[in-house]
Amino acid sequence: MSNDHEKFMQRAIEMASFGMHNNLGGPFGAVIVKDGEIIAEGHNEVVSSNDPTAHAEVVTIRKACEKLGDFQLDGCILYTSCEPCPMCLGAIYWARPDAVYFGCNKKDAADIGFDDHFIYEEIDLDFHQRKIKFHSCGRENALTVFQQWAEKEDRTEY
Amino acid sequence: MSNDHEKFMQRAIEMASFGMHNNLGGPFGAVIVKDGEIIAEGHNEVVSSNDPTAHAEVVTIRKACEKLGDFQLDGCILYTSCEPCPMCLGAIYWARPDAVYFGCNKKDAADIGFDDHFIYEEIDLDFHQRKIKFHSCGRENALTVFQQWAEKEDRTEY
Repeated sequence: MSNDHEKFMQRAIEMASFGMHNNLGGPFGAVIVKDGEIIAEGHNEVVSSNDPTAHAEVVTIRKACEKLGDFQLDGCILYTSCEPCPMCLGAIYWARPDAVYFGCNKKDAADIGFDDHFIYEEIDLDFHQRKIKFHSCGRENALTVFQQWAEKEDRTEY
Repeated sequence: MSNDHEKFMQRAIEMASFGMHNNLGGPFGAVIVKDGEIIAEGHNEVVSSNDPTAHAEVVTIRKACEKLGDFQLDGCILYTSCEPCPMCLGAIYWARPDAVYFGCNKKDAADIGFDDHFIYEEIDLDFHQRKIKFHSCGRENALTVFQQWAEKEDRTEY
C-alpha cells in the first residue's frame, strides 16, 4: 500500500515536471485516485490559461468531478506534489476526498518564491488589516437572499 | 463613490438571487469592476456544473481574467454578496484585485449551513489534526522539480 502511495505521488511529480518544462505554469502537479485507479491528473496552468485559480489541485479536482458527474470526491485520494495553498486547501474541503498526500511542504514553496505562506498569514488577520483591503457593504440587502435560501424547500446542499 | 459601491454590490446580490432561484447553486453572486464598468459577473454554479470550485468569486475571477487576457486583476474591485470562504480568499490573493467589498459575513454563511467557518478552523490546524487526513509522501523526489524551477531562466512568475 505504501508503494502505491509512492507510485501515485511519483505521477503527480511527473505532472509537475511536465507543466513546468512546457511553460504552462508553476512546478506543481496532482492526481486523483479512486479504487486504485487514477481518474484525473493535472498540473498548474495559471500562466498558459490566464487563470489564477488553475492550480494543480483545482484543475485536477475539476476534472475528477466532471468524470464522476458529482461535486463530491467520496472514496477518492488526492496526491499533490506540494502541500496545498489556502485556495487549494479550501477546494479540497469543498470536494471532500478521503485523504490527501503531499510531496513538498509549504516552506519549500515559500523557498522558491510562492506566496502560500503569505496568504496563510493574511487569512488569520481581521479583514481591516489585510494587504488587500476588504470592506463590508450592503449586508442587509444581501441577507434577504440568504433568508430565501434558508426557506427554500428544493435547495440542493453541497 | 459610496453609491457606486452599493450599486455594484446590488448587482452581485442580484446574481446570487438569480443563481439560487434557478437552482444553479448556492445563494452567492459576484461582480468585478474595472474603471467604473462591470467586466465580469457570476454566481455559484457548484450544483449545476458538478464543480465544487465553482463559487461565485472563483467563477467571476476566471471570467474577468479571460476577458483581460491576464492572470492578474490589477485595478479591479471585486464585489461579492458574501465574505469569501478560504478557497475564494486564496483565489483573490492569487488574482490580486485592488480591493474587495462583501455583503453577508462569514457568520451569516454559517447560520444558513455553509462550511466556511469550519474550513477556516481546519486551516489553522496542523495537518495531522485535520478532519480530512493529510500525509507527507515523497518529498525528496518532489523537491527536485522545485530545484529545477528555481534554476529555470525563462520561468514566468505569477
